[in-house]
Amino acid sequence: MTLPFAAPGTKAEVEEGAVLTPRFDANGLIACIAVDAADGRVLMLAHMNAESLARTLETGEAWYWSRSREELWHKGATSGQIQRVVEMRVDCDQDAVLIRVDVGGDGGCCHTGRRDCFYRRVELGPGGGTAAPVRLQAIASRVNHSA
Amino acid sequence: MTLPFAAPGTKAEVEEGAVLTPRFDANGLIACIAVDAADGRVLMLAHMNAESLARTLETGEAWYWSRSREELWHKGATSGQIQRVVEMRVDCDQDAVLIRVDVGGDGGCCHTGRRDCFYRRVELGPGGGTAAPVRLQAIASRVNHSA
Repeated sequence: MTLPFAAPGTKAEVEEGAVLTPRFDANGLIACIAVDAADGRVLMLAHMNAESLARTLETGEAWYWSRSREELWHKGATSGQIQRVVEMRVDCDQDAVLIRVDVGGDGGCCHTGRRDCFYRRVELGPGGGTAAPVRLQAIASRVNHSA
Repeated sequence: MTLPFAAPGTKAEVEEGAVLTPRFDANGLIACIAVDAADGRVLMLAHMNAESLARTLETGEAWYWSRSREELWHKGATSGQIQRVVEMRVDCDQDAVLIRVDVGGDGGCCHTGRRDCFYRRVELGPGGGTAAPVRLQAIASRVNHSA
């Protein structure tokens, strides 16, 4: 596939320019933060390669690169949880994008059944050396559960 | 340094367990999304290694790993834009954390002078092949500028 994006220029061009020149990492990926357009909730963090980014721009639906399955991933293709992109932004050094999405299907996002992937709070405090394990506290966020 | 975190267990333990077992990548890093606790705005995406994650938990202030400078990075140490962590969450597969922060100093975050790093909107639409470059639209978000 021909890369559909121009190569990054100078630091000034990357940071202040008006052209999308994604800085893909050694694996050809950039990070993508998906936020629910309805309430601003951070839904998930995933990755895009050039092809998934291009498909996302073209179709207006989120396409990712699944690092575990090593394949293009049209989010929601099987679950119905399609993410329609309302807005996309890119960060200063163009190695991350932020998308605000309308979520289809049952409104969920996480493969565990939650509305988002960040359903556990990390206990703050000393976590180093010989201290006890850092604990997590579950936050109810199942789809179709109000608790 | 002794890793202050337990090694990831089974998929079920990672996803549903009550212990933080970060899944650092090949470079020893996990992604961290920082969100402004005041208004939910996504401020930045950065990375943490085990030591910066441990310091963040211990001090309640965001420490990152600077991939460009290859060093621990106490956010705001020079700029005053300290990020006090109000809440930290971890995602389903424990390779990303989300922190809600109170921002110190002038309230900024991005090294370019903006309140956040996502100050350019990406033009949606065909971006592949022989199409014109994908354009970016600047969104004013300078600190101390109301425009």
